Amino acid sequence: MPVAIPLITLLTDFGERDYFVASMKGVILNINPQAKIVDLSHHVTPHDVADAAYLLKSCYRYFPDGTIHVAVVDPGVGTARPPLLVSSSQYVFIGPDNGLFTHIYQEESGVEVRHIENRQYRLDSEGATFDGRDLFAPAAAWLTKGQPMGSFGRLVPNYERLPIAEPGWDKHVMAGHILYIDRFGNLISNLTAYHLKEVRGVAKRSEPYIRIGGHTIDKIVRTYAEGSPDSPGALINSNGYLEIFIREGRAADRLSTARGARIELC
Amino acid sequence: MPVAIPLITLLTDFGERDYFVASMKGVILNINPQAKIVDLSHHVTPHDVADAAYLLKSCYRYFPDGTIHVAVVDPGVGTARPPLLVSSSQYVFIGPDNGLFTHIYQEESGVEVRHIENRQYRLDSEGATFDGRDLFAPAAAWLTKGQPMGSFGRLVPNYERLPIAEPGWDKHVMAGHILYIDRFGNLISNLTAYHLKEVRGVAKRSEPYIRIGGHTIDKIVRTYAEGSPDSPGALINSNGYLEIFIREGRAADRLSTARGARIELC
Amino acid sequence: MPVAIPLITLLTDFGERDYFVASMKGVILNINPQAKIVDLSHHVTPHDVADAAYLLKSCYRYFPDGTIHVAVVDPGVGTARPPLLVSSSQYVFIGPDNGLFTHIYQEESGVEVRHIENRQYRLDSEGATFDGRDLFAPAAAWLTKGQPMGSFGRLVPNYERLPIAEPGWDKHVMAGHILYIDRFGNLISNLTAYHLKEVRGVAKRSEPYIRIGGHTIDKIVRTYAEGSPDSPGALINSNGYLEIFIREGRAADRLSTARGARIELC
Repeated sequence: MPVAIPLITLLTDFGERDYFVASMKGVILNINPQAKIVDLSHHVTPHDVADAAYLLKSCYRYFPDGTIHVAVVDPGVGTARPPLLVSSSQYVFIGPDNGLFTHIYQEESGVEVRHIENRQYRLDSEGATFDGRDLFAPAAAWLTKGQPMGSFGRLVPNYERLPIAEPGWDKHVMAGHILYIDRFGNLISNLTAYHLKEVRGVAKRSEPYIRIGGHTIDKIVRTYAEGSPDSPGALINSNGYLEIFIREGRAADRLSTARGARIELC
Repeated sequence: MPVAIPLITLLTDFGERDYFVASMKGVILNINPQAKIVDLSHHVTPHDVADAAYLLKSCYRYFPDGTIHVAVVDPGVGTARPPLLVSSSQYVFIGPDNGLFTHIYQEESGVEVRHIENRQYRLDSEGATFDGRDLFAPAAAWLTKGQPMGSFGRLVPNYERLPIAEPGWDKHVMAGHILYIDRFGNLISNLTAYHLKEVRGVAKRSEPYIRIGGHTIDKIVRTYAEGSPDSPGALINSNGYLEIFIREGRAADRLSTARGARIELC
Repeated sequence: MPVAIPLITLLTDFGERDYFVASMKGVILNINPQAKIVDLSHHVTPHDVADAAYLLKSCYRYFPDGTIHVAVVDPGVGTARPPLLVSSSQYVFIGPDNGLFTHIYQEESGVEVRHIENRQYRLDSEGATFDGRDLFAPAAAWLTKGQPMGSFGRLVPNYERLPIAEPGWDKHVMAGHILYIDRFGNLISNLTAYHLKEVRGVAKRSEPYIRIGGHTIDKIVRTYAEGSPDSPGALINSNGYLEIFIREGRAADRLSTARGARIELC
């Protein structure tokens, strides 16, 4: 896959206060001053690889073909876990081999995974704690300069994947869980229109009930504005997921619900 | 108005943790990889249109002619509230018709307001909850590609405006209110040098008293450094507003004052 | 030093909610639409010049030659403290003369310091509270347009420096202190491999003990993953400093340690 435009995105758990993100940007621009850098997010829950994987999955596909997505949530930094360069028919992904790219392996076509082994693309540094700056950022930048993928290292057949719990039947209910809680306190589940349809077919009711945190929701609306400020509503959001919300309120707080909480259709 | 440079600013209440802002940037760069994107702020108080309107008012004019300002604070997303494309002699503004552009209508010349009706500029998406990504971002990007404004939709004569409470005489005092509290805890009022002058003319004192939250301030200084760390000071800030501060402290906390609080000159 | 690429970084205590940073970016792009702007950080502790100086020191050198670093942490804004334009053989630094550039004076070669006196590079504004927008941003932007440094103002022989406490022997221990606490709660000290070596030479033990906040650490590891989730570990980080951490935990909270805390080698 040719890298047409030098566009690099960054996804980390570094926050925006410290010098970590700025150091990565400096390194990239030092290698390729023409690079365009976009922040995906730097507010991944510290060390939470699954959180980062979900964030990446939710937005990587909106970027132009050839975009290089760099993801650094890396509690194993400096250990034997290999640095990866993953290419698909549309994108490149760079980061540690710890499951960050689990959804990419599922969703992208033409995926090739290689280890980044060539030390000539690495920055010299005393410590072993900042591969974001010393290894991943330079790899992305050199790639935008036209270095061929093969020069980074060998293709590998095995790489880490996070376990992904798909929704499924549990007796008479379709059970899923909360994948993500957004800034507005909305609860995003792993249930989709597909699961709603499946439950409708069995229950022979026009609209399944939704149960979460002791609440039952009996209607699915289209927009937040159709919800109530006093009780939870449900809709299929713009990424295709069933989402629980409170109109101009915070469902996560009102339902005392955390990521991973069970949600049922019946 | 010709759009000379592909510069787009983004103002939202999306925060910077989630995938919302990144999705908008991806969509823009996918349509126009040459676009330059600048964040105004993504930390508008959730659903608070007046807060966003004030932020926009405070900085839009510092950008070059032709800048496209996209503002998405949109509790009514997906409902009948129309998406707007607002042009003035210098700028373009894109966002929902909910009052976000109230100050623009007041301050800009040559304002033309149209609905964005052309669905060919819209991203296909299942849900109706993310017009920032599916409608406003692509509209801005297509505009930078040279699509004529007329192709987006019809001019409309009516659009939403927020009520704006201007300062005014209340018996013998000039009463205003706090518009905004900044990161430093400074209280920015809607009183200006004009109101100070008016009160001076009536009171025939060289300097009016300022009353807020039970405190009286009897002097207006020029810089924060002239204030005291122990009691509130007042100055005309660089946007022309009377601002209450505590030197290297937080006036909002010390005076237990919130947005909307009354402030008096007498 | 020629300014080859129009790259400007911004370091402030303005946060990212308000209109301050966006105003600076607008001003820069209005003067030079080709400028590339990178955020170093806007989350410096308000008014904390030493905090900003450390952040700058930690990442400025990763940027390409010719980068202009603008730093605005400026409790004395509007007073007689002069605005500075500092050039070295590789970079330019712009900001108030309050010690922000202390580490630059130590670390860079060919340093020249001048006052920014030329009022033609300044924005007209009523107030005196926002030199970031009205003075520092335009100075940086005009510099990228090729204005010669001499046109900004005269070289000056004196400028502010912060006191810097270097580690030193205190009876039989080498005593340093905590410089910085990062997002992960890691404690970054001013002790380096050099101090470890010095203590080793005297103690004739292979590895010195580290004492901080009532804890003793008897081993230095290479990576976070070698630490324990239950007790503090130590390593030399990628900036060369001795850093105290807890594996996937927050050392700052667990050790109840703040910036400035004493750390000892013996």
